[in-house]
Amino acid sequence: MKETHPELKRLCIHSITTKPWRISEAVSEYARAGVGGITVWRDAFSELSPAELRRYATDAGLSVVSLCRGGFFAAAETARRRRAIEDNLRAIDEAAALGAPHIVMVCGADPEIPLSESRMHIVEGFQAISDHAAKSGVKLAVEPLHPMYADTRSAINTLGQANDMCDIINEPHIGVAVDVYHLWWDPELESEIARTAQADRLFAFHVCDWRSPTRDMLNDRGLPGDGCIRIPTIREWVERTGFNGFIEVEVFSTEYWSMDQHEFLERIVASYNEHV
Amino acid sequence: MKETHPELKRLCIHSITTKPWRISEAVSEYARAGVGGITVWRDAFSELSPAELRRYATDAGLSVVSLCRGGFFAAAETARRRRAIEDNLRAIDEAAALGAPHIVMVCGADPEIPLSESRMHIVEGFQAISDHAAKSGVKLAVEPLHPMYADTRSAINTLGQANDMCDIINEPHIGVAVDVYHLWWDPELESEIARTAQADRLFAFHVCDWRSPTRDMLNDRGLPGDGCIRIPTIREWVERTGFNGFIEVEVFSTEYWSMDQHEFLERIVASYNEHV
Repeated sequence: MKETHPELKRLCIHSITTKPWRISEAVSEYARAGVGGITVWRDAFSELSPAELRRYATDAGLSVVSLCRGGFFAAAETARRRRAIEDNLRAIDEAAALGAPHIVMVCGADPEIPLSESRMHIVEGFQAISDHAAKSGVKLAVEPLHPMYADTRSAINTLGQANDMCDIINEPHIGVAVDVYHLWWDPELESEIARTAQADRLFAFHVCDWRSPTRDMLNDRGLPGDGCIRIPTIREWVERTGFNGFIEVEVFSTEYWSMDQHEFLERIVASYNEHV
Repeated sequence: MKETHPELKRLCIHSITTKPWRISEAVSEYARAGVGGITVWRDAFSELSPAELRRYATDAGLSVVSLCRGGFFAAAETARRRRAIEDNLRAIDEAAALGAPHIVMVCGADPEIPLSESRMHIVEGFQAISDHAAKSGVKLAVEPLHPMYADTRSAINTLGQANDMCDIINEPHIGVAVDVYHLWWDPELESEIARTAQADRLFAFHVCDWRSPTRDMLNDRGLPGDGCIRIPTIREWVERTGFNGFIEVEVFSTEYWSMDQHEFLERIVASYNEHV
């Protein structure tokens, strides 16, 4: 499979997108398809250490775009919050060893406590790890999650909230990740994307699509073109800020994971070329 | 079953909540349980006409709180938009005959067109039916829907958007319905509820709960207390505006619909007394 599309070098794939593949296989196959980058999910380290994986990806000609994922700071119990902070400090070390410029941060939520309290824990979590991230040269990209995940995954559900939180923490290495799946519905999205430019804090751009109907709240994401998100419009808003980084395909899909992953990779590349 | 809770007269149940019951049965059973009001879903009219149902409910001592539901204005095809407007004019006539002070409006969305276009159709739809509603003495309550329904059910997904749209249309008989299920996650919720007071436009307050995990995007709502929504907090925000109308339990639940509906009604009443 040979691709000559000039933009293909800007395509990054999240390793979870081809979940059935081991990380070494994902790296080789992405590189062979002409894809430019990989975002590494942390389960990869059960096969290769961060330093080994860095070498492996570099040798294959693949850029490591980010580490996925840190966060999950919100919790009713103090002990769980402390463990989350320790885990994030480890993730920072992993990102540094891996050569990933930033970590994608899924902030966390706990249905046992009010959202306002989860949001406080999230700010405290970032403050607790901020120095270590700065010293390690690792940026932290706050990824607002769709409001349907506000019970357990993230109490940060709009880009406006993420921008507000970044303003509060006010550190140049803490910014945002824009994922069209989580944010496409938001009437404030265009203006909040523009707002990221003022602080130069748009670190990452993730794409996939919203299937209509969506059959599962977690594992039924579509490839670009499978659903109703106007991805090129959002991409235009993102690039108007000066963003010229990787465009990352991140898909969780029981349906696609059950396909032959080589065929699936061809479809990822085609959907990126046609619908992003 | 005899209830003496002084607040029970403020409880209204949506007829769809006890979907297995015919409307006549729902009216009798709600009244017998001491419930104060009913919101009628339009499928009820296959059994009783609006005028018959009005008499039937009044005789049972039940207030008709609202008619559910109008809207669905957004559509790629002109013919579908025209049919939606005609259907809403009929719903206004039904509400007038039923004696329902307002109709709950689910605005609509069409995955084939951008959200911005759906939103234009929605404003046009309200403008097309506004006069008829005013002349008929029927109010229209815009219900923002959870962002997970932005593909097909509603392109109005926050109370801020609904308030903005009401400001644009600017008619005293067009206001909002606040449903905790759709809006609980929104960091702007408290301020946007307060904002409704300026225009006296908070027409309805719907409650149920967000189960964690939620097993189905449509039919897995919980009763108050089953989930993670801080209902009493939101109720306090609502009542701070001066709202003293009915508190409406609206639950779609495959699980609860499969129960004996008499037992389920007891649980509705108990959950209202304990968790609202």
